[in-house]
Amino acid sequence: MLFTKYVITAAVAAVFAVPAFAAETLSAKDLQTASALRDAAQTGNLSYRILESLTTEIGPRMAGSKNDARAVAWAEAKFRELGFDKVWKEPVTFPVWTRGVESAEIVAPFPQPLLVTALGFSVGTPAEGITGDIVRFATLKDLIEAPDDAVRGKIAFIDHKMQKASDYGSVQAGRSQGASEAARKGAVALVIRSVGTDSHRFPHTGMMRYKEGIPKIPAAAISNPDADLVVRMLERGKPVSLKLRLGAENEGTYTSYNVIGEITGTEKKDEYVLIGGHLDSWDLGTGAIDDGAGVAITMAAGEFIKRQGLRPKRSIRVVLYANEEQGLIGGKAYHDAHVKDLHKIQAAAEADSGQGPVVRFSSYVQPAALPVVKQMFDVLAPLGVQAGDNDAHPGPDMGILKSAGTASFGLGLNNEDYFDLHHTPDDTFDKIVPARINQTAAAYAAFAWMAAQSPVSFGSGTDALKALKTVSK
Amino acid sequence: MLFTKYVITAAVAAVFAVPAFAAETLSAKDLQTASALRDAAQTGNLSYRILESLTTEIGPRMAGSKNDARAVAWAEAKFRELGFDKVWKEPVTFPVWTRGVESAEIVAPFPQPLLVTALGFSVGTPAEGITGDIVRFATLKDLIEAPDDAVRGKIAFIDHKMQKASDYGSVQAGRSQGASEAARKGAVALVIRSVGTDSHRFPHTGMMRYKEGIPKIPAAAISNPDADLVVRMLERGKPVSLKLRLGAENEGTYTSYNVIGEITGTEKKDEYVLIGGHLDSWDLGTGAIDDGAGVAITMAAGEFIKRQGLRPKRSIRVVLYANEEQGLIGGKAYHDAHVKDLHKIQAAAEADSGQGPVVRFSSYVQPAALPVVKQMFDVLAPLGVQAGDNDAHPGPDMGILKSAGTASFGLGLNNEDYFDLHHTPDDTFDKIVPARINQTAAAYAAFAWMAAQSPVSFGSGTDALKALKTVSK
Repeated sequence: MLFTKYVITAAVAAVFAVPAFAAETLSAKDLQTASALRDAAQTGNLSYRILESLTTEIGPRMAGSKNDARAVAWAEAKFRELGFDKVWKEPVTFPVWTRGVESAEIVAPFPQPLLVTALGFSVGTPAEGITGDIVRFATLKDLIEAPDDAVRGKIAFIDHKMQKASDYGSVQAGRSQGASEAARKGAVALVIRSVGTDSHRFPHTGMMRYKEGIPKIPAAAISNPDADLVVRMLERGKPVSLKLRLGAENEGTYTSYNVIGEITGTEKKDEYVLIGGHLDSWDLGTGAIDDGAGVAITMAAGEFIKRQGLRPKRSIRVVLYANEEQGLIGGKAYHDAHVKDLHKIQAAAEADSGQGPVVRFSSYVQPAALPVVKQMFDVLAPLGVQAGDNDAHPGPDMGILKSAGTASFGLGLNNEDYFDLHHTPDDTFDKIVPARINQTAAAYAAFAWMAAQSPVSFGSGTDALKALKTVSK
Repeated sequence: MLFTKYVITAAVAAVFAVPAFAAETLSAKDLQTASALRDAAQTGNLSYRILESLTTEIGPRMAGSKNDARAVAWAEAKFRELGFDKVWKEPVTFPVWTRGVESAEIVAPFPQPLLVTALGFSVGTPAEGITGDIVRFATLKDLIEAPDDAVRGKIAFIDHKMQKASDYGSVQAGRSQGASEAARKGAVALVIRSVGTDSHRFPHTGMMRYKEGIPKIPAAAISNPDADLVVRMLERGKPVSLKLRLGAENEGTYTSYNVIGEITGTEKKDEYVLIGGHLDSWDLGTGAIDDGAGVAITMAAGEFIKRQGLRPKRSIRVVLYANEEQGLIGGKAYHDAHVKDLHKIQAAAEADSGQGPVVRFSSYVQPAALPVVKQMFDVLAPLGVQAGDNDAHPGPDMGILKSAGTASFGLGLNNEDYFDLHHTPDDTFDKIVPARINQTAAAYAAFAWMAAQSPVSFGSGTDALKALKTVSK
């Protein structure tokens, strides 16, 4: 997951305002089928096994790397193996970024190495490295407000500590924007405290962007324990000098693919429920929680429907996006390739904040569909799911679809431990708990079925949906 | 800590057999002083602050590295700052081992990198690396019992999983002896599952030894999650090929120092209580729990006695050993330098299994001293300490002293989480909990005071001590 993040609160009030007029609703049979799917999909560990396959046989799959192509081939083969009716891929082209070697060390007054990783899209340093005194800022805002001469010729250090998952939006601003803000004041490099909630010695990578017209300076993250160490050094009041070496490079472009598997509908097969995750990962770990889990959950959800011998009225499409991490590139490509037919998307819901379980169900549908949403919620509630509001965000790659007027759902995942592992080498399969990912796959299977069977449209492309008052997330 | 490890059981029965004859015991005043020391030493965070200083200002301090000399200078200065009466150092010479670059990757059938680290004293690989198919063995024993042709030309993989702290002795056998056992059968390299109880992506380093007359092959550890990954790959039944690059080298010798601080006694100043830890660490972390904690705890214990204006009858000597990690070199040097006067050591007790708290108090003293030991235990018991037996091991560097007939004590530390961090990059100051390390320093202060005041000798160098039936630990 890149930028946008759900805030999961402990108890969110149900706000399903049901209109006063008689409404079309899901049939008793469809609801019974959805409940049976929900229960069956919690057994058999299918999503767990799909994720085991992806992390074992492919592992890291950074956009544009050798493993990107291997992951695409894996996804096509896995969709076929799982019995999807149609499997295809759609090209996604983007600039290539490579990490190269990286190291950092305090050279004075207390020489010792730090654990560091480049931020995605950072430029490299000269081969001999860049050395400068560290200037600490508690937040990006403090850096922006600092006088230029506090930073000129130095290495800016944004020390914004992430305490909990809901801090992500504010803390990652330093990661994405810090380098240009530091460079604007003449800094020679940016180092940030990792955007993560753990206290392990893993730096968290993640995307950054340069602003136009400002020199590009190298940008890297150090682990939380290393940031603590630097703070302790700085507290001693002497200049602390850091040497940073990054071999990162931007060079050329690469064409990867959104890989798509479809269970074709019977009555309205050109309309479809769109679920999925992103196939790419960062290079440091094996992309188990980010976002192998989303890949596995949504593939398994589709397979469960197929396996029960069910044929949905609308199609169910599972999209595994290329290159989410480096700027939601796959999501934009899907939008652009299907821009004339976005109104055919009955509902969009991406899984990209870990293994779950699903703790909240929210919608973004036209009012006439709220009675169906209430039915859907009632099927999911026995999984421990709470009701959200009617302003769902469908996930990072699908955000562009919501902006374009697509009805959306949010199956909000428990992300308490997500930012312990996010974008680190420690994002590996051993962290996956079958009961958690099984619940999530079950929720997606039941959700997708009910959305496909709905007697009413959720309102994609309609004025009724556009008229909804939306709250910025 | 290198090889030997206390096994802390949940409840150890008190086995202080008190002789029937009237015995000399500690005075009421000494016991009152000890209790006051115990209570006072839990406040003020002194050991915490000493450890903060060591990990911040020095950090990693591998034997023979540049930071080895910086650590020695730090220790001398810190002893003086803390007000010790005498501060000196004694030379310790050993061969130098350097780590160099290191990497590992699965090259077929599922290409992806692994996180690896060389075992201490391993030879390097050729610059281009060594590539071979992996052959898995559940334990060192399984490797030893395997037919030669199962291993010849391949990379032996010892997959012995450490479940809990008390497994350390058996699991580390694969680390220390595995390379020669694999080489004996013609293996080209050894890789082991890390000797550690965590599931994070940190390989654990640690010492290994080559047997004479057998080719030296490179030896490395992969993290527990990586070992899980390799196992999953192997389960697919195809050959799994690993490429290993280690830049490790053995070259020359280095002279470091045991650094010693003494609080000089009043009545029997040539007799002394010996406490301490080891000043060196592995290079990957900053040696907070291994063994900065032991350094800080025992320095703080001495300072507490000094600060209260107390003068012990016997001297209290804090020794910070050089190069424990690469073979207990400092411990042997201390023994050799003092071999004529070992009987002057009233008691030996090293702190080298983390930050504590102390959970068990055991002794190795002549029977006539057991009433005093019982008094000492009664002072420590309010800290939550349980009684152990009269077969204490004094710690890795001091083991040689016990073997030479020195009375010893074991202040057994809670080591539940010790092997999560041991020998990894994650052994850093943020893992230290003030209440834990304060308790340990308090126990050491009270212990050292009472041992120094004891009206009876604990029996170093006596036949009464030699006559004790000892149980191998």
